[in-house]
Amino acid sequence: MNEPALKVPPGQAFRIAFECEQLIRRFALRNDAGDHDALAEMFVEDGSFARPTAPDAPVRGREAIRALFRDRPRRFTRHLMLNTVIDALSPGRARATSYVALYSADAGVDTAAQAPPYPASGPHLLGGFDDELVQVEGRWLFLSRRGSLALRIG
Amino acid sequence: MNEPALKVPPGQAFRIAFECEQLIRRFALRNDAGDHDALAEMFVEDGSFARPTAPDAPVRGREAIRALFRDRPRRFTRHLMLNTVIDALSPGRARATSYVALYSADAGVDTAAQAPPYPASGPHLLGGFDDELVQVEGRWLFLSRRGSLALRIG
Amino acid sequence: MNEPALKVPPGQAFRIAFECEQLIRRFALRNDAGDHDALAEMFVEDGSFARPTAPDAPVRGREAIRALFRDRPRRFTRHLMLNTVIDALSPGRARATSYVALYSADAGVDTAAQAPPYPASGPHLLGGFDDELVQVEGRWLFLSRRGSLALRIG
Repeated sequence: MNEPALKVPPGQAFRIAFECEQLIRRFALRNDAGDHDALAEMFVEDGSFARPTAPDAPVRGREAIRALFRDRPRRFTRHLMLNTVIDALSPGRARATSYVALYSADAGVDTAAQAPPYPASGPHLLGGFDDELVQVEGRWLFLSRRGSLALRIG
Repeated sequence: MNEPALKVPPGQAFRIAFECEQLIRRFALRNDAGDHDALAEMFVEDGSFARPTAPDAPVRGREAIRALFRDRPRRFTRHLMLNTVIDALSPGRARATSYVALYSADAGVDTAAQAPPYPASGPHLLGGFDDELVQVEGRWLFLSRRGSLALRIG
Repeated sequence: MNEPALKVPPGQAFRIAFECEQLIRRFALRNDAGDHDALAEMFVEDGSFARPTAPDAPVRGREAIRALFRDRPRRFTRHLMLNTVIDALSPGRARATSYVALYSADAGVDTAAQAPPYPASGPHLLGGFDDELVQVEGRWLFLSRRGSLALRIG
């Protein structure tokens, strides 16, 4: 949470920050859409991902990450990304910290048979993500995402 | 939710994204302030708006949108905009997707007689907006906003 | 909530907005981290801060702000910053408005002895911040932050 060291010209730093924040938000949207292939493609080949519920048990490698998202039980969720701050470490490397709020539809909701809004009685979760990002062929990707938990709401 | 096609130079794309996100946030603030004239002025003359509660019943035309906001029952609300991602389609055209969380004060709260914070027992709503935006005389405006609902919280 | 007056070239306005929003978010992160020294350093020497619970009783001066944050009862909190809109008034001066959602762990939670997520039964608060910002030696700082309350949730 220190100020970014000035290894990157300010004019470049905020473009990097913008592109990384868009990546972080798209990850949340694709997670809610259940698009596990798109999620996996947002990591480098040997990237790692630790879910907020298991911060110390990262899954390593794009294919393992794809399988993690593909094989978990399907829920209707909304991940809200908040307070993202980004340090551009070099023109091709950045670090980001975000909060995440997770709202899930109640177990047993049948989204095929019912119309939204779906009931979400809670509890809901508030946590965070610490990310390392790297630019590959002009595109920002996750090197690692480490989730964590903070509050159980309601 | 695909990556933006590169029809816009990156240096321009993120300025467009910034300006469009500010517009989306100002819409929420003006909505909460009950400023229906300012809301209407954020649409092009033949713009369309579909409320999250009626995604398939868009209201068409700036004057009809003004009337919609002016004539609805007044409530004390807070609209929170989240996860906005923006695709710059051309230097004067963009598409945006956002989540929105809506918190409303309880019915019967008298904001003239009581001091905030006002009780908001819920349920609260989580939904989204899909927007088409266009630049007119240097200013971004909504061509269309289509709301939708996702979760009923609490 | 009016459109920014064009006293700043658009290419500069959005860089100012980006830097100010990052400051606003870092303030929230440092507040949750209990880092009162870092919070105080984000104000100019004679800056002022009014908490959302006491919008009309601002604390004046960096040292008084440091003491305010240092001496208050410690709680485990998550401040979420939302809907930030920024008007660049000049190359070195800006005004910002944000919403803030405040979630606090229940009284009596022992964060040293328990693992997160910590229970947060509520009620939770939704309010806002109106900020004046100034650039000093290339760095944005708060001239004043004035909090306010809007809703008590749950």
